[in-house]
Amino acid sequence: MSNHPVFGAILAGGGGTRFWPVSRKGRPKQLLSFFGTQSLLERTWDRLESLVPAENRLVITTAELAAQVSAVLKDLPANNLLCEPVGRNTAPAIGLAALVASARATTPVLAVVPSDHFIANPTEFSRLAGRACEVAASGPIATLGIVPTRPETGYGYLRMGAELGSDVRELLGFVEKPNAERALRYLLDGGYLWNAGIFFMRADVLLSEVRNQLPELHQGLMALAPTVDTPRFSAALAEIYPELPSISVDYGVMERAAHAVVLPADMGWSDVGSWSVLDELGQSKEDNKVHGSVVAVDSSANILYADEGAVVAAVGVEGLVVAVSQNRVLVCPKGRAQDVRRVVDVLTQDEALSRFL
Amino acid sequence: MSNHPVFGAILAGGGGTRFWPVSRKGRPKQLLSFFGTQSLLERTWDRLESLVPAENRLVITTAELAAQVSAVLKDLPANNLLCEPVGRNTAPAIGLAALVASARATTPVLAVVPSDHFIANPTEFSRLAGRACEVAASGPIATLGIVPTRPETGYGYLRMGAELGSDVRELLGFVEKPNAERALRYLLDGGYLWNAGIFFMRADVLLSEVRNQLPELHQGLMALAPTVDTPRFSAALAEIYPELPSISVDYGVMERAAHAVVLPADMGWSDVGSWSVLDELGQSKEDNKVHGSVVAVDSSANILYADEGAVVAAVGVEGLVVAVSQNRVLVCPKGRAQDVRRVVDVLTQDEALSRFL
Repeated sequence: MSNHPVFGAILAGGGGTRFWPVSRKGRPKQLLSFFGTQSLLERTWDRLESLVPAENRLVITTAELAAQVSAVLKDLPANNLLCEPVGRNTAPAIGLAALVASARATTPVLAVVPSDHFIANPTEFSRLAGRACEVAASGPIATLGIVPTRPETGYGYLRMGAELGSDVRELLGFVEKPNAERALRYLLDGGYLWNAGIFFMRADVLLSEVRNQLPELHQGLMALAPTVDTPRFSAALAEIYPELPSISVDYGVMERAAHAVVLPADMGWSDVGSWSVLDELGQSKEDNKVHGSVVAVDSSANILYADEGAVVAAVGVEGLVVAVSQNRVLVCPKGRAQDVRRVVDVLTQDEALSRFL
Repeated sequence: MSNHPVFGAILAGGGGTRFWPVSRKGRPKQLLSFFGTQSLLERTWDRLESLVPAENRLVITTAELAAQVSAVLKDLPANNLLCEPVGRNTAPAIGLAALVASARATTPVLAVVPSDHFIANPTEFSRLAGRACEVAASGPIATLGIVPTRPETGYGYLRMGAELGSDVRELLGFVEKPNAERALRYLLDGGYLWNAGIFFMRADVLLSEVRNQLPELHQGLMALAPTVDTPRFSAALAEIYPELPSISVDYGVMERAAHAVVLPADMGWSDVGSWSVLDELGQSKEDNKVHGSVVAVDSSANILYADEGAVVAAVGVEGLVVAVSQNRVLVCPKGRAQDVRRVVDVLTQDEALSRFL
C-alpha cells in the first residue's frame, strides 16, 4: 500500500426504529446484535482490523449514544470517540473525521463506513477496501458499490463507467431510489450498483471538495481545526457543530466530486433494513430464525427475537416476525416487516403510548 | 330465606398456568383482570353481595397468595382470610370454612364458590344461589349445574333426576369428563349439566358427610375446631393441615352424599379455561379483543393482551392470541390456545428457561 496512513471513520450516530421494539430511541440498530452475540457496530470495528490500526479508527456518534459505544468497543481509544452535539448528517461527520486524521498524520486516507450494515464476507471487504485505499491515495474518491441481486427500490444506485483498472470503474453518477420498473431496468442493464455509503478518500481531497462545494461547512471545519486534540475541542465543537449545514456526503460532496471511482463489491452486504432480513442472515433453530430465549412448538419459518431478559413462545404459527424487548411486542407476517413504521407512527402520535417508543 | 345464616366460602387457592404468560407461579388466574379492571376474584366477591354480608365471606387461599388476596379485596375482614399452609384440594378447604362458620354461627349454610370463573349474569346467579341456600338449609347439599351449550369434553358432568320443586332437580351422580361422542350424547339428551364446583350446604351436613366418608379428614378438622378464632389457630393449622388428605369435595364428599340436588343454571358461566375464551367475553376494539396497551394495524379477530407496563403491536395478522406480561410473550392461533401447556412444559423442563414460568 502507499505511504498514506489509513484512518477509519465509523459513522455510528444514526437513529431509526425499523427494528422496533428492539431498536428504539437511544438504542439504534448498530448497537443491536442480530447475528450471534456481536453488535453490528462491533462487527464493523472488527472488519477494519486488517486495514486500520485501532489507534486510527475514529467513531463518530452522538452524545446520547457515546457511553453505549464506549461500552461496546473496548479497544476504542477515548480520544477517537467523536461526539456530535447534534446530528448533522454525514458530510459534517466525515469532515470532522478528516480534521482529526489530518491533525494526527500527513495526508491520511479515510475509510468511511456505516456502523449498521452487515457484510457476510469480511475478507472480500478487506481486499476491496485495501484496493480502494490505494486508489484513493492517488487522488480520486472511491466508493464500494454493491452488485445488485434484486430490483430493489429502497436504495440509491451508482452508475458505473469505463474500467479504469483492476476492480475499479469510473463513477458516472448517483441515481435516486428508482421505481420498480426502473429498478428492474438497472438490474438487467448491469451498469448499476447499490450505494452503500462506503467511501475512501484522502482527507485533504475531501476538505478541498468541501471548500469548493460546501463553503459554509468548510468555514466551520476550519474554525474547529486548530482545537483538534486540544482541551478546547469539546467547547468549540459544542459551539460550532450545531451551526454546520446538515447534508449528506453523497449529495453534498460525491455527486459533484472532481474525480470519483467505484469498485463493484460482491461481499454479502445487507443494510439490515427490516426484520425480514433475518430470514436470510439469522441463526436457525428448529426451522425458525431465532435470537435469545425462544420456545417454538409446531412452528416454522418464523423470525423469533427475544431480547435480553425476554422470552418468545410460539405455538402453531408460521411465517411471522415476533420480537420482544422490554415488555414491547411486535407481531407481523414477514412480508409486512416494513410496516413496523406504522406502529411507530401510532406510538408517536398517541400520548398514552409514546412511552413505548 | 330460612334463619340459617349464610357464609361464603370463596376458594382462591388455585394455581394454574393456562393463561401463561399472564398467569404464572404466584399469580394465578383469579388475580387477573380479563374483563375490564376487576379481577375474577373481586368479581366473585362482589357477586356474593346480596347473598352473604361481607363479615360472613370467607376466602380460603394459600400463604403464597394471601398478601395479594388482601390487597385486592379491601372489604375482606382479616380473620376471614384462611390460609392453607399447603394446598390440599377442595374437601379440606371447605371443611375448614365449615369449621370457621360453625364457630361463628348456629347451623350456618355455606355457599362454596370458585374464585376464577366468570358469570355474565350475576343477577341470575344471585337468584339461583338464594334458592340453593333455602334448599340446603333444609338438609340436602345443593349444586348449581351449568346448562351445556356445546359438547364440551373438558368438564365433568352432573346427571339430573326428577324435578323436586321449582328450579330444583334430584342429583343422580357425577360423570367424568366424556369423550367427544359421549359429550354430544349428553348435550342431546338434555339430562346433563356441567359441574362448575359451586355448592351450597349446611356446615353441619358437610362435616357429617366428611365424618362418614373421609374419617381421616374429619379427625384433622376436629383437632382444629377448638382453635378457630383463638390465637392458637395459625399454629394448629400449620401443624395439622399438611397432614390432611388431599381430595376434592366432588369425589370425596358429593358423589356419595346422602342427599344431593342440583339447580340447572343458565347464567353466562365460563370457567375462563384458555385464552380463546376472551373471544366470547373480552372487550372489543377495532375488530380485536384487547386488554391494555395495544396497537393493531390491519389486524382483526385477534386476542391481544398487554399486561401492565407492556404493549402489543400487531400488523397484518388475524385469528391470533398475542399475550405479553413481564417480557414474556405467547403467540398462537386462537384454536391452539389450549397448547399453552406445551410451552409451560418446555419452560418447566429447561433449566435455562424455567425463570420464565
